[in-house]
Parts: sequence; structure tokens; C-alpha cells
Amino acid sequence: MDGGDDRLVDDLRRRVDETPFYGWAGISIVSAREGEVEVAMEVGADHLNIQGLVHGGLLATLADTAMGLAVRTRLEPGSRHVTIQLGVQFLSPGRPGRIVARARVVRSGRQIAHAEADVVDAGGKLLARAQSTVAVMAERENARIGDPDQ
Amino acid sequence: MDGGDDRLVDDLRRRVDETPFYGWAGISIVSAREGEVEVAMEVGADHLNIQGLVHGGLLATLADTAMGLAVRTRLEPGSRHVTIQLGVQFLSPGRPGRIVARARVVRSGRQIAHAEADVVDAGGKLLARAQSTVAVMAERENARIGDPDQ
Amino acid sequence: MDGGDDRLVDDLRRRVDETPFYGWAGISIVSAREGEVEVAMEVGADHLNIQGLVHGGLLATLADTAMGLAVRTRLEPGSRHVTIQLGVQFLSPGRPGRIVARARVVRSGRQIAHAEADVVDAGGKLLARAQSTVAVMAERENARIGDPDQ
Amino acid sequence: MDGGDDRLVDDLRRRVDETPFYGWAGISIVSAREGEVEVAMEVGADHLNIQGLVHGGLLATLADTAMGLAVRTRLEPGSRHVTIQLGVQFLSPGRPGRIVARARVVRSGRQIAHAEADVVDAGGKLLARAQSTVAVMAERENARIGDPDQ
Repeated sequence: MDGGDDRLVDDLRRRVDETPFYGWAGISIVSAREGEVEVAMEVGADHLNIQGLVHGGLLATLADTAMGLAVRTRLEPGSRHVTIQLGVQFLSPGRPGRIVARARVVRSGRQIAHAEADVVDAGGKLLARAQSTVAVMAERENARIGDPDQ
Repeated sequence: MDGGDDRLVDDLRRRVDETPFYGWAGISIVSAREGEVEVAMEVGADHLNIQGLVHGGLLATLADTAMGLAVRTRLEPGSRHVTIQLGVQFLSPGRPGRIVARARVVRSGRQIAHAEADVVDAGGKLLARAQSTVAVMAERENARIGDPDQ
Repeated sequence: MDGGDDRLVDDLRRRVDETPFYGWAGISIVSAREGEVEVAMEVGADHLNIQGLVHGGLLATLADTAMGLAVRTRLEPGSRHVTIQLGVQFLSPGRPGRIVARARVVRSGRQIAHAEADVVDAGGKLLARAQSTVAVMAERENARIGDPDQ
Repeated sequence: MDGGDDRLVDDLRRRVDETPFYGWAGISIVSAREGEVEVAMEVGADHLNIQGLVHGGLLATLADTAMGLAVRTRLEPGSRHVTIQLGVQFLSPGRPGRIVARARVVRSGRQIAHAEADVVDAGGKLLARAQSTVAVMAERENARIGDPDQ
């Protein structure tokens, strides 16, 4: 993604800065425009499995993050999104270095959105592909819909 | 899972101790028997999204870990496993505290295995369900099959 | 599933009778209770792939049907359901004869439901497992939500 | 897909002609080249659900067919493929008329292949997207690997 929308990037960076998980996991915003978000992660020693390859859960996490934020760029004020289903195909093992997830919204409606993402390494090699199904809901309905027991 | 197989638990704990990612992520083995593995994670402030809920990627990671290790209990010596596809349904938001993923092998063959997992919180509430498709391969074929470009 | 709810079975049978696809595909209701539905299909020569095994698309179709109807047993009057995501693991090849899909609702909320199904042959052998994510919506919102272009 | 490979198209058409399921379901080959296959289905009254829309199982079936055949174009002589996992996102309802599934291989290795497909209607509207994970095996190992009980 070349360029992108500066206002969106700023908004997403603020969101990432306020989210403890992203700082811990080393996830940052690369670029964003309406319906598309790119996030990066610097893979270090902490992120490797016993074979010295990136744990698949991290590839899934990076893809899930990018897809959720891509859907967020499509939300109207007062709405929020919750990922309800995630699918990942692992295509090649990832090695230490920078990996990037590029997500785009495939379809977004008033109640449901679908997104997809590619996860690539610094050389452009495709490590994983992912799809997510996302529920869109009013902010005021968070508790009730996000947690059916409340 | 009550009890479990002590030898398996020891083997998996050794494996987890040797894997940098598990220490970093706070993942540990709870119990194991042939075809079934239970792993836990203490969810702290680092693992939360902007709403104060566990990031979905961590639920996916915990489930993926448990499923991979469950398949591992079925491998013959000289074999290894690679997760090639992961699916997760997010059912309820997770809050700080201990969460556990309980995985079992649904089918294992010479070339392919299928596993599934439940992710539950300390109160037994179901947070997520997951399924994985796993390739089984000879140790000596790692590089070639795990990475098609080599 | 033993027994079941006769009123639910009658309601679902009426629905199946009114749906051209089910007659064509040979799909019928076996049993139903709140949150659980079992449907059957007689696999004949028309349903086989070139190896003489049941085409995987039919196992997916049977599972999808059972899961959608299971969600339907949980709907309030004036609501309808639309499957938005389907996942299937194919575990064993199916051969001619009767196959059955047993579905249950894993979680149902006001906006989203999750279901799962086992597909088994007459001998009880597990042929496939499936999961679906389902949107629940008001009848009057059908067109708008089911079809974002309207 | 413009053009395509005539020899591949002929080979796949022969295969489709010999497969009872495809004739019954009304599925035919549109185009094929190495790693890409397009199949079509004429949706008639038999294929509709109670709302007059194409049953989602048929969209899944059409996608699965196209993806399996796309993988087949990459197989070496003496190999065969078995779909082991299928994922589908349903994006828009399908109406009577011609629908087409366009599949391509995302990655193919000696043991595992990944494919994806778009399902579109005659107006080019995207009805569904799908992904499959496919096991590749030697012809002589069919029974053992395709059916773990033998």
C-alpha cells in the first residue's frame, strides 16, 4: 500500500498506543486507508518456536489485528467491531525479522463484515493468508452482544 | 482432564521450556495424555485489548499450541508436525486471569491430523473453540516440505 | 439424539417440504429438539465423485443444512438466520448409503449464533466435522442485510 | 480467465463427464490453465432455499469443485488430491441464473496444497469466497491415506 490516509493512520496509531497488547507484542501501524490496513511486527527471539520459526499463533495474531483495524476504518461513529471467526492458512515458515500483515475489507454491512489478510516477510514471501468474520454493533450494546451472559 | 500421563507431561514441559515463545507468552502445560493436551496462560495487563479484554490472537495462539502438542503425542519417533490451517470461533470475551485450552486429536493419519480445542476461563466459561489441520512429516523432510522454496 | 420435540420436527419438516433444494438433494429431517437438529441424506450414484466416494460438497451441504436448522430452533418469531461462514474438516471418505448430520448450537445471541455438526455414515463412522457462523436478523431487514447492495 | 490451456480443459471435461455428481449438479468446466480453473453451474428451481436464494451448500460445492480441479492441474502423474478442509465466507445471496467459481492454487507442495476461489454471478457480483486445504498423495496410497481405517 503506497501512501494511505494520514488521519486514519494517526487514529489507528493512537488506538495501538493505548492498547497494552500491541506494545507488548511489538505490533505497529504501517499504513492505512479506508478499508485497508497494514501492520508490522519485529520478530525476535521471544517469538520463535522450538525450530527457530515464528510461532503460528503470532502470524494469526498479526493478521487478526490488521483485519480488525481494516474493518474499523469502515465503522460509523458509535459502532464497534468484534471478531467472531478467524481462519488462517499457513503457507511458509517465518524467520526472525520484520513481518507485515496487509488486510482489506471484502464486504462490510450494517451488522457483519468480512476481511482478509496476507502475512508477508521482509522479502515479500507469503507466510500466511487469513480471513475473518466480524460483528458490527452499537457501542451501547457492547456488553450485551459481546458477552451473552450479561 | 483428570490425571494424565506423567511421562508425556514431562516431555511436553521440556519442550515448552526449550521454546522461547512459550516463556514469553506465559504458556505452560497443565496436563497431557495420548491425544489430549491442556495448556494454560495467565492473562495479565499485557494481553488486553483497548476494551480490557484478552486479544483474540492470544486465544487463537493458546488453542493452536494445545492442538499442536496434542497431535505431537500421536507422532511416531522421527516425525514432526506443522499446522497448516487454523479456524477459531470467538464465543465470549476473556478477562484477566487464568485461561486454559483443552485440545484433542479428532483424527490422525500418516500424513494428516485434525485436532480441536476449547478455550475456557477459570470459571469454566467457553471463550473460544478452534480446529486445526496439521501435516505430519518425516524429520528429514522438514526444510523441503515446511518451506517449498528450499 | 433420542426422542426430540415433535412440534419442532413437524415445523422443520414443513420447511423442508417447501424448499425445492431439499427434495432435489434428498435431504430429510430425522430428529429435532431446541438447539439440536439431525438431518439425513440417502447417497446414491448421483452423489459420487470419480472415485465412487461422496462429493465433499454434499457433506458440507448436509452439515450446513443441519446447523442452519439448529439455529432456527433458537430464533424468536420475526427473526431469520443467514449462514455467513462455514468451515468443514473432511475426516473419512463417504460411500453410498445413508449419511446423517447432527448439529447443535454452540452459542446463540441476539445478533450472532455459532453451530457445529458431525457427519456420520450408517455405521457411525465420522466422515466430517463442521462449524458455522450465522447472522440473526429481523425478518423485515432481510433484503438490506442479506444483500448489501439493496 | 481469458483463453486457458485447451489440453487441460479437455482433460478436466473428460473427468467431469465421468463423474456422476457433476452431471447431476449441473457443473461444467469453463476454462482452465495450470493452477487456475473456472467452473459454472446453472442455478434452477431445484437449487433454491425457501427464500428463493441459492442454497449455500451449492456455493460451497461449486467452490470446492473448482479448487480441487485447480490443484489437480498441478499434480504430477501418479498423484491424487483429497480436500481435507474447506472454509467459505458467504457475502451475498445468489439468485437463479449462471454462477461461476474461479479457483487458483495459492501454494502447492509435495504433500499439501492450498487453493482459494471466488464465486460470482452472471453480473460479476461476488457471492462467496472460499479456501481449501488439500492433501496430495500417491495413487497407490489412496485407500490407506484417504481412509485411515484400512
